[in-house]
Amino acid sequence: MRESGPIWLEDLAVGMEFRSGEHRFEVADIQAFAAKYDPQPFHLDPVAAEQSFFQGLAASGWHTAAESMRLMVESLPVGCGLIGVHCDLGWPRPTRPGDTVRVVSRILEIQPSKSKPDRGIVTVECLTYNQADEICQRLVTKLLVMRKTMPTQG
Amino acid sequence: MRESGPIWLEDLAVGMEFRSGEHRFEVADIQAFAAKYDPQPFHLDPVAAEQSFFQGLAASGWHTAAESMRLMVESLPVGCGLIGVHCDLGWPRPTRPGDTVRVVSRILEIQPSKSKPDRGIVTVECLTYNQADEICQRLVTKLLVMRKTMPTQG
Repeated sequence: MRESGPIWLEDLAVGMEFRSGEHRFEVADIQAFAAKYDPQPFHLDPVAAEQSFFQGLAASGWHTAAESMRLMVESLPVGCGLIGVHCDLGWPRPTRPGDTVRVVSRILEIQPSKSKPDRGIVTVECLTYNQADEICQRLVTKLLVMRKTMPTQG
Repeated sequence: MRESGPIWLEDLAVGMEFRSGEHRFEVADIQAFAAKYDPQPFHLDPVAAEQSFFQGLAASGWHTAAESMRLMVESLPVGCGLIGVHCDLGWPRPTRPGDTVRVVSRILEIQPSKSKPDRGIVTVECLTYNQADEICQRLVTKLLVMRKTMPTQG
């Protein structure tokens, strides 16, 4: 775990972990996000949600993804920014009103580009945990990460 | 393409398409979403964005995903709601200020549950196109879809 400073491709190693701060999901925020982007009863109406698959109000998965991104931006200070080229995304359980979540990001793979020596593709697993240490989102993303210094030309 | 009415598992067939309405990305909305969920210079600051990988202001991929979800909720009226269990998500090109996007959803696969005859998993490819018919998001999602009527017990 690093505390500060921008990170470049040459700073990363498989297995490195980055731990985010926390975010608490308030019912009003869940409803506001859903009203704008995912207007379905189980994200908007606590009574209707009781009768739904979720058996109670649940945050939109895209809301969990968006708040997780905020936590990742704050905890994974890649120098060129977090530029995702592909994501594999799942929600093993819903995020509920009052849940406090955090993200643990772990480097799975580093592939330096063969054609462009100034960059590489880094595969990161980002797990969003709730306050009971249950996983409410699993994101595996491929990030474009630049080198700070070019490798010496042979 | 269906025009109205809730859709259940027995209404779906591989190859069916659903076309959404349109949404225009305004620069202020791009910046507001980024400030809340993805505060990176290339989503916030037009000048800094010029020097970035994106070479100009770009919407957060999660903003494209959220607006695409809104368009899908409006155009894919599944009776039990859109309940995604897994997503494969990529952004072949950024969404830019002024882009007007729409989503075309196509049924790729239908797998009735073996253990629970009231439901199935439906794989849907949802392509988000901009006004130039370029794909700015490709989402392949597995949805849980319920049957309206139970199959006859044999």
